Amino acid sequence: MSNHPVGEHYLVELNDCESSLINSENHLREGLIRAVQRSGATIVKDMFHSFSPHGVTGVIVIAESHVSIHTWPELHYAAVDIFTCSAKMNVPLIIEQLEILTHARVVTLKQISRGPKTT
Amino acid sequence: MSNHPVGEHYLVELNDCESSLINSENHLREGLIRAVQRSGATIVKDMFHSFSPHGVTGVIVIAESHVSIHTWPELHYAAVDIFTCSAKMNVPLIIEQLEILTHARVVTLKQISRGPKTT
Repeated sequence: MSNHPVGEHYLVELNDCESSLINSENHLREGLIRAVQRSGATIVKDMFHSFSPHGVTGVIVIAESHVSIHTWPELHYAAVDIFTCSAKMNVPLIIEQLEILTHARVVTLKQISRGPKTT
Repeated sequence: MSNHPVGEHYLVELNDCESSLINSENHLREGLIRAVQRSGATIVKDMFHSFSPHGVTGVIVIAESHVSIHTWPELHYAAVDIFTCSAKMNVPLIIEQLEILTHARVVTLKQISRGPKTT
């Protein structure tokens, strides 16, 4: 679709996670911020929120675009997206750290190039 | 990929936008917040940021997941993603409002179901 990519958008499905880990806002916030910092990205702002009765949403705005996580502890599942316009950002490191943070046993990934159409 | 969808993730490419409109943090913030409210979503928090020399990033966390926009005024291009776990949210209305907000002339859309794999 995109003929002039400005960035890559990764959609990551984390399956068979440990429910208590993906229901902890503090655990996810600390771990994901550390992972994003280690990836070489520049953090602009972050916001995390716990839902009742369960589930956490977190978004980290980075100079390179954003990283988000939404969790469904009752399904042992977390949906992540990582959008970066920097080829230098270490996206595999973030995914590896997410696996450690969530104890996900099955991880799948889709990568989609984003950018304007050129005519 | 997903056998048990918890939500739908829409990746929207806005091409041939009016540069001045997609370089205005206030314009995008006010317009996108209004569009998201009208879509029936519940806003939790928002954060918008202007980059130097140009470009705006905005993320609105909603109870249903999130809406983000990243703009490249120099390319007349904006990348949007809308992730919702509610079938009731009016996503077409948000996309229509984005077209009005940005004066995009060519809009393309990818829809990806998100959710855990069932075995």
